Amino acid sequence: MSKVLIFGHKNPDTDAIASAISFAYLQNQLGVEAEAVALGEVGEETRHALDYFKFEAPRVVETVANETDKVMLVDHNEFQQSVSDIRDVEILAVVDHHRIANFETANPLYYRAEPVGCTNTIMLKLYKENNIEIPAALAGLMLSAIVSDSLLFKSPTCTEEDIQAAKELAEIAKVDVNEYGLEMLKAGTDLSEKSAIELIDMDAKSFPMGDKQVRVAQVNVVDVNDVFSKQAELETAMLQTNEAEQYDLFVLVVTNILDSDSVVLAVGNPIEAVEEAFNVTLENNKAVLKGVVSRKKQIVPQLTAALTK
Amino acid sequence: MSKVLIFGHKNPDTDAIASAISFAYLQNQLGVEAEAVALGEVGEETRHALDYFKFEAPRVVETVANETDKVMLVDHNEFQQSVSDIRDVEILAVVDHHRIANFETANPLYYRAEPVGCTNTIMLKLYKENNIEIPAALAGLMLSAIVSDSLLFKSPTCTEEDIQAAKELAEIAKVDVNEYGLEMLKAGTDLSEKSAIELIDMDAKSFPMGDKQVRVAQVNVVDVNDVFSKQAELETAMLQTNEAEQYDLFVLVVTNILDSDSVVLAVGNPIEAVEEAFNVTLENNKAVLKGVVSRKKQIVPQLTAALTK
Repeated sequence: MSKVLIFGHKNPDTDAIASAISFAYLQNQLGVEAEAVALGEVGEETRHALDYFKFEAPRVVETVANETDKVMLVDHNEFQQSVSDIRDVEILAVVDHHRIANFETANPLYYRAEPVGCTNTIMLKLYKENNIEIPAALAGLMLSAIVSDSLLFKSPTCTEEDIQAAKELAEIAKVDVNEYGLEMLKAGTDLSEKSAIELIDMDAKSFPMGDKQVRVAQVNVVDVNDVFSKQAELETAMLQTNEAEQYDLFVLVVTNILDSDSVVLAVGNPIEAVEEAFNVTLENNKAVLKGVVSRKKQIVPQLTAALTK
Repeated sequence: MSKVLIFGHKNPDTDAIASAISFAYLQNQLGVEAEAVALGEVGEETRHALDYFKFEAPRVVETVANETDKVMLVDHNEFQQSVSDIRDVEILAVVDHHRIANFETANPLYYRAEPVGCTNTIMLKLYKENNIEIPAALAGLMLSAIVSDSLLFKSPTCTEEDIQAAKELAEIAKVDVNEYGLEMLKAGTDLSEKSAIELIDMDAKSFPMGDKQVRVAQVNVVDVNDVFSKQAELETAMLQTNEAEQYDLFVLVVTNILDSDSVVLAVGNPIEAVEEAFNVTLENNKAVLKGVVSRKKQIVPQLTAALTK
């Protein structure tokens, strides 16, 4: 059997990268020849975590069927968020914490999803169930993923299990969660070098909603003006991307990680769906979304509902 | 919150019924108000197991949205095998051992699938993970499901984990696996009272394969002639069902549980897919399938491959 490749979603965030690394290490310990790879370059936040705990970024792959016939998915399941040739390989396992959609297999598989805030919270369980010890550096990387997905436990997706898992991992990694966590989150908000195209693609996912294709991008900041000073370029880039990728609607959510509010910028059709989903009026294509920080819980379900009536 | 309903697939077999009961008991112990229900009347084999361990058959429901907004699925995930109004309720959890297809949710959920032979093998794990004790009678019912799905450990779907789980459950239930198991399997093969229509609907599932709708029914026997003495009526019933339900192809697999071979009877289109899938030539619409006992591993993937080129 060729080596099993393990990867998170396209435009990988810290959880996508860290869960590929943590699941690959677990599989290796269980005797499975597996390698963590990535469906894109890592961002600044993830780079900070990898450097801090002395990991290399996983090798980036464009396709997988050219080198293996068996894969495992982490932190995603929807095929449009996965590798382009996902239908040409067998999916042996999935570990995830998202809704299940646009996913299917021909054969039975191992599928472990739980409605928690971070894939690595589930990974910690899997290590315990299999009695595998977590090295300190890996615990630090897994902790980084929980901090990232939960915005230091402030996101509504964060559960008590995530908080407990973070505490356990911080003890193994011997770091102060709040100090390290804020430092890592801030590393991800340095957008000074980013072009408009880069900003709208840093953490973007596509979702079919009703009969529309919707792109939802999210950027974390400590000051929303860091992004909106480039609003005109952003809108141009979003419209061009809609045309090139055949998205109907592009929704950019800029989240202030300090006060846990967001500002949404939307272009495309039907733009009214955005107003309806969040019960706001767009002005200059923008609106403040008070208390909204989670794409998964506070954006995608609401947009899906508005677009599938 | 209204009571959570927990159910297995339509045309419930012993695992569908037993896993609904075992998961509902687990949820109750965890403080969730849940009730096991069924998407159809139980068959003779399941009746034998329920009677032996003194359980009532779960209440049969046609729809669920009229009484709850939250459900949990066991032993299935494909919507066409589920309750007719599955899209009108939220799926909180799935515990299953089949491929994943024709399934989606709007929200994150608990999904536990493992490539083992029986849902109740996974249930035993869940009881252990949650430190919940299994009452002797329930252990007997869970054991019955493993015996049923594995044909007393002879099916290629049966894994070492299923065998170990059956041993553990038999100890708790204080029954002899082989003696009780064969008695239960034989109870399911008394077909003397069954009409052709009943025979082809006892354990039947629908699968989209390529652009075809395929119905795959399976009947366990100790003598295949018990069924094929009615071949003409069976073919008539299968053709009528194809027309009424818009199936393209109806495949009936009659499995001898003593020698672990099957005979397939097929009607509809494209009938050549059956010959190609199993590398046989149909004579009088029938062919022997040596060593074939598992719909999941030895029938559905092969037919799917033949129909999706």
